[in-house]
Amino acid sequence: MYKSIGSEDISFFESIVQERCFVDLESLDMYSHDETEDIFILPEVVLKPSSAEEISSIMQYCNEQNLCVTPSGARTGLSGGAIPVHHGVVLSMEKFDKVIEIDEQNYQVTVEPGVITEVLQNAVKEKGLFYPPDPASKGSCFIGGNVSENSGGPKAVKYGVTNEYVLNLQIVLTSGEIIWTGANVLKNATGYNLTQLITGSEGTLAIITKIVLKLITHPTHDLLMLVPFMDSEVACDAVGAILRNGITPSGMEFMERDALIWTQEFLNDRSILVEDNHAAHLLIEVDGFNPEILMSDCTKIMDVLEQFETGEILFAESQAQKDALWKLRRSVGEAVKANSIYKEEDTVVPRSALPALLNHVKRIGYKYGFKSVCYGHAGDGNLHVNIIKGELTDKQWNEELPIAIRELFTEVVKLGGTISGEHGIGLVQKQYMDIPFSEKSLDLMRSIKAVFDPKGILNPGKII
Amino acid sequence: MYKSIGSEDISFFESIVQERCFVDLESLDMYSHDETEDIFILPEVVLKPSSAEEISSIMQYCNEQNLCVTPSGARTGLSGGAIPVHHGVVLSMEKFDKVIEIDEQNYQVTVEPGVITEVLQNAVKEKGLFYPPDPASKGSCFIGGNVSENSGGPKAVKYGVTNEYVLNLQIVLTSGEIIWTGANVLKNATGYNLTQLITGSEGTLAIITKIVLKLITHPTHDLLMLVPFMDSEVACDAVGAILRNGITPSGMEFMERDALIWTQEFLNDRSILVEDNHAAHLLIEVDGFNPEILMSDCTKIMDVLEQFETGEILFAESQAQKDALWKLRRSVGEAVKANSIYKEEDTVVPRSALPALLNHVKRIGYKYGFKSVCYGHAGDGNLHVNIIKGELTDKQWNEELPIAIRELFTEVVKLGGTISGEHGIGLVQKQYMDIPFSEKSLDLMRSIKAVFDPKGILNPGKII
Repeated sequence: MYKSIGSEDISFFESIVQERCFVDLESLDMYSHDETEDIFILPEVVLKPSSAEEISSIMQYCNEQNLCVTPSGARTGLSGGAIPVHHGVVLSMEKFDKVIEIDEQNYQVTVEPGVITEVLQNAVKEKGLFYPPDPASKGSCFIGGNVSENSGGPKAVKYGVTNEYVLNLQIVLTSGEIIWTGANVLKNATGYNLTQLITGSEGTLAIITKIVLKLITHPTHDLLMLVPFMDSEVACDAVGAILRNGITPSGMEFMERDALIWTQEFLNDRSILVEDNHAAHLLIEVDGFNPEILMSDCTKIMDVLEQFETGEILFAESQAQKDALWKLRRSVGEAVKANSIYKEEDTVVPRSALPALLNHVKRIGYKYGFKSVCYGHAGDGNLHVNIIKGELTDKQWNEELPIAIRELFTEVVKLGGTISGEHGIGLVQKQYMDIPFSEKSLDLMRSIKAVFDPKGILNPGKII
Repeated sequence: MYKSIGSEDISFFESIVQERCFVDLESLDMYSHDETEDIFILPEVVLKPSSAEEISSIMQYCNEQNLCVTPSGARTGLSGGAIPVHHGVVLSMEKFDKVIEIDEQNYQVTVEPGVITEVLQNAVKEKGLFYPPDPASKGSCFIGGNVSENSGGPKAVKYGVTNEYVLNLQIVLTSGEIIWTGANVLKNATGYNLTQLITGSEGTLAIITKIVLKLITHPTHDLLMLVPFMDSEVACDAVGAILRNGITPSGMEFMERDALIWTQEFLNDRSILVEDNHAAHLLIEVDGFNPEILMSDCTKIMDVLEQFETGEILFAESQAQKDALWKLRRSVGEAVKANSIYKEEDTVVPRSALPALLNHVKRIGYKYGFKSVCYGHAGDGNLHVNIIKGELTDKQWNEELPIAIRELFTEVVKLGGTISGEHGIGLVQKQYMDIPFSEKSLDLMRSIKAVFDPKGILNPGKII
């Protein structure tokens, strides 16, 4: 396995990053986990380099010395990608916190990976530009983590996910070499697509040190509505009906009854009245440049919704009300976490299969005795299934639940879907990779990993 | 090297594809070239399999026997990707000609690689759906070739290139295994992105046998205008100015004076009067769902154009006139080809660098004594540089021109660009891959190639 870190290693690291080398317990503890359930594994040292050259020296040394390295961003991940499973070095990217250049001529931004996604969004918005992908954790997650996980978020239904915006990456290889994966261009047919291979590779192939992203013009107007449904599967059906009528909302978020109620309690915000017969809600946003067209889009959406049984539709009347509704939606994950021990599955299917997926979730829950709270990006067919520990025994939780999850993922793949839409595989979904992929596909991935990291020192124990 | 094909090999192939095995000279000749300049290399046999299983048997056999295999689509490529450099087997995908399923619920289509791109577009348009990427050769190229080359086309400025639409691929590996690269979903964070690795890999990693593409709602209206400029660099400047004013046209095509005049002659279409002082034209299209908004977009474009010196702007007044204008643009490549021996370079830069790129092209042409005709997708910064043989001697053409091209590509990379935007590297640009990529990056690509094709039997001699 990997070598343990000794005092001579620490001396070397200090020669590279000076005082940004940490071995105190508080630091080690802080980097022992991300937002994934209750998993804590201590690293042996935390390094906070501030340049690609420092990382190059560190990687070359660790590769030679057989020390394992786990890259770490804002630790908001939900699949355990930043957990140092084999201890060793945590390489925190937090000092890479600069928006290097906003290129207004070409609608591009060059940014370091440790910039908070919302900070990046605000910086480009000041120039009238828009970087759309915004995971629920946008106020705390790093753009480098978003690229590594190929993050999505509510706007993906209209604007796509992170990888559709990544034009070029500067990366440090395990050998210490620093390369660019592509060019700063909108179209590129020059060799294998290393940019897209690194994007979504969860920090297992290389360390990302600079990111060039495509931007678009920032929309000037949006409208937001919250629609209660008496039946969750009907809410999912409505999503497809809206899209098939030629409207592409900039958000179509699904929340089961408990997701909304638990979040209201968590935030102590009772502004929305959830009636007894409300089984689920859709939060629907349209955005664009022309208020009249947006109103007309909303009217069309209302027309479509008339085919379905809904409660009274709430239109947000102020920016404050929009912010409050989005805060409710964005806080569901935290609220569920605060309520119970849970496991979150990040299922994704072709969106017309959403009602069937929801049905499978509940059926399997009934069979294995667990309760679930579901919410997510219905427009993309991406359903977050939160399985609640509640009254389950530790034995049920640890031994039976993996069987239930396997059954759920098998149904997901049968529906044409896969086991992660935007959270990544990391540590906690690794055991299920044989469900979406054949052994041969996994072999290809293992071989690609070996191309970039022959000794397996970079983020070991993840994905495959 | 590779084994030559003998009668026992032919017997095996006939046992798999029956009468779809060809060794007659006419067939061999037909598959000896694509649309790339004047390169002809005969294969030893042409196979036309009709199922993934047939391809699996062929690949397994060729891999064991060390026979090389060159996949072949509609042979409209411009980088020599389909030329059987080492002879051997040409694997024509023309029997894979079915649109398998148009999924109107999920806005997806499953298609075989041998379907002509325009046939696919028309099939989905009947359902109100839109597959946007449309290379100039859309009436004859195959969708499988588009995926293999990551093709672009005029609409890329608004709608993106092929890889943004590829959700999932069925591929046959050199070992004969048949796998799917992903899932039929809009977002996917499950393992390494094999789908994007195969897309644009120019038939060097695997044989694509099924393609699942994302579709969008088909726009209902469009407007088209042709704008003459007195100065080519000013035309390029105007492109950036339009985009910076928040308009995203669905096409922004640049044509130098000679490109338009040669094409008029080639098509015998003199409907456009090119004045003596017209140095270049922009063909600008807007599309959408609301005619009033499109008119307003055109008015905004006219306002922007007032800052520049232009000739009289032509608005297409009928579908026939739109078709004629697009035909002119789409025929430039063929017209140049008909006019002279030429070489086409597929340069791409951040679009604000287009005027500088054009300037470099002309300066290098002056230095080395060649004339060039430039045209392309100005909205994406993608300039096709057609170098005309004209009066150049064979010695100049064969010995000096590569030096000039190297000088041009070096400038392109300095401008932040790269050496192919949409045509691929194939055979003819391979010698320049050291300009955009470091030796380490090329090594990574070679190693990825070896993962998929350890014996190097698949489309040898291409990319790297």
